[in-house]
Amino acid sequence: MNTNPRLSGVFSPVITPYTDDRRQTAAMLVRHSRWLLGQDVGLAVFGTNSEANSLAVAERMHLLDALFEAGVPGDRMMPGTGCCALADSVELTRHAVAHGVGGVLMLPPFFYKGVSDDGLFASYAEVIERVADPRLRIYLYHIPQVSQVPISLALIERLLAAYPGVIAGIKDSSGDWANTSAMLERFQPQGFDVFAGSETYLLATMRAGGVGCITATGNVNPGAIARLYRTWQQPDADAQQAELDALRATFMKFPMIPALKAAVAMFSGDAGYAAVRPPLMRLDSQQNTDLLAALRAREFSMPGL
Amino acid sequence: MNTNPRLSGVFSPVITPYTDDRRQTAAMLVRHSRWLLGQDVGLAVFGTNSEANSLAVAERMHLLDALFEAGVPGDRMMPGTGCCALADSVELTRHAVAHGVGGVLMLPPFFYKGVSDDGLFASYAEVIERVADPRLRIYLYHIPQVSQVPISLALIERLLAAYPGVIAGIKDSSGDWANTSAMLERFQPQGFDVFAGSETYLLATMRAGGVGCITATGNVNPGAIARLYRTWQQPDADAQQAELDALRATFMKFPMIPALKAAVAMFSGDAGYAAVRPPLMRLDSQQNTDLLAALRAREFSMPGL
Repeated sequence: MNTNPRLSGVFSPVITPYTDDRRQTAAMLVRHSRWLLGQDVGLAVFGTNSEANSLAVAERMHLLDALFEAGVPGDRMMPGTGCCALADSVELTRHAVAHGVGGVLMLPPFFYKGVSDDGLFASYAEVIERVADPRLRIYLYHIPQVSQVPISLALIERLLAAYPGVIAGIKDSSGDWANTSAMLERFQPQGFDVFAGSETYLLATMRAGGVGCITATGNVNPGAIARLYRTWQQPDADAQQAELDALRATFMKFPMIPALKAAVAMFSGDAGYAAVRPPLMRLDSQQNTDLLAALRAREFSMPGL
Repeated sequence: MNTNPRLSGVFSPVITPYTDDRRQTAAMLVRHSRWLLGQDVGLAVFGTNSEANSLAVAERMHLLDALFEAGVPGDRMMPGTGCCALADSVELTRHAVAHGVGGVLMLPPFFYKGVSDDGLFASYAEVIERVADPRLRIYLYHIPQVSQVPISLALIERLLAAYPGVIAGIKDSSGDWANTSAMLERFQPQGFDVFAGSETYLLATMRAGGVGCITATGNVNPGAIARLYRTWQQPDADAQQAELDALRATFMKFPMIPALKAAVAMFSGDAGYAAVRPPLMRLDSQQNTDLLAALRAREFSMPGL
């Protein structure tokens, strides 16, 4: 059994700093992670917006070790562990579970396209059987516009039937509310916890019985997003949602990951956070200027960063 | 300088056997590879049809070591080394180059979609700079229907200008003859060697100045494909092409990778070759029966396997 409480609330795919020095990289990741935790946002490290797949397996494990050495709580951790090669997914998942994480967020193998539900079921089943740890909790990661490998409702049903308790929930990043809504209706009552893929659907997800969201912009706007999660039943919830949407729209005008990193670099005073790994490119100086102007126009700040 | 001759002819993305025993897996890979070499087909190990991305980095290096220990010639070797994480691509490429391969076949990082040519240029550039070995020869791997990350003509032009000699050619698996033809016209005269992505376009590619093909069905029909490569200027070339197309069409009626593995299993007498890794699934027994019947109807054989 995983003795951590079930995960809920707001999580962020924490941006991964890149420097030439392992210790400095880890220290920067720890610093940003602590800031997020301080704003009541959990750590979905090694997500899409963390450039997880630009990290080698050993790099991911080193960074997770560093976070735990720094004392981050396992019950606020949902690291991404899904790779193309099941051997890698097994290694990362075992390592994360041994650290006591609340759950792992698992992409399906994403190189082959048009694979069958049988094949995806076999993929998750093999990871579960090989990890063979009763503490394992898997959150499925549905992000078809990037992975190009969707997780269907039929697949969820089969996985839940075969591995109740282990299959703990999903992040739905499809942006397709009809899909999120169908999952909330069919599976949330069975204890399959549905996280919206961004704060865009946070309020709608909470109203339909879901448990929170996992969102890129949690890296830059954690406090306000976490506040809506806590107060979604208050009369100002729709107004809060509109505010969140407006800030997100500002970031969406730029390539998201470089823009998040640029914002953290600018507001933390550590320019090192802006580095990305190819094939991503950092914002150019005009984009930086435009982003800063747009954020200032909104009186945006990152208090305590 | 890479002292191997420039690569040309027919290569096959060698199917990767999967067993629970590393030595047995390696022995089966060596056995099939030797059979291919004996039919004049080179080894594009760790390609799409090799399930390369279902292998961990260490597994790929172990298998390449085993092939070299078994005495396969470097000048018939074009291993795939392109991963999502550049650190992995660098490690695999260094290892392959140190073994003396004729070239490496390199996917672009394929997790993020819609990335810029700047980002892809930076990806290849970073691998080249970090490998930092004058023996490095890169064949770009254009397979947009799977990777979802195309390699544009503009990107090839930039890479060729920046890294002449290192950027050695391409495998065009797009199935879009207009694209292959444009590359043959614009870049082949500069010594950028164009391989068709399958034997479907072998004759057309040779007639337009290309250097061969890299093809999945090379695993099962190597002799006939290599013969067309050697004799494409003979009067029966179109008839040969038609024969190749007909056999390929038989395999295309099934999921390609499981069908190739099933055929090798059936005709080698070693059922172990049929194993695939999730998310792929092996042929079911009806598909096996149908494939065998279709191959027998064509009087198909794999002499010497």
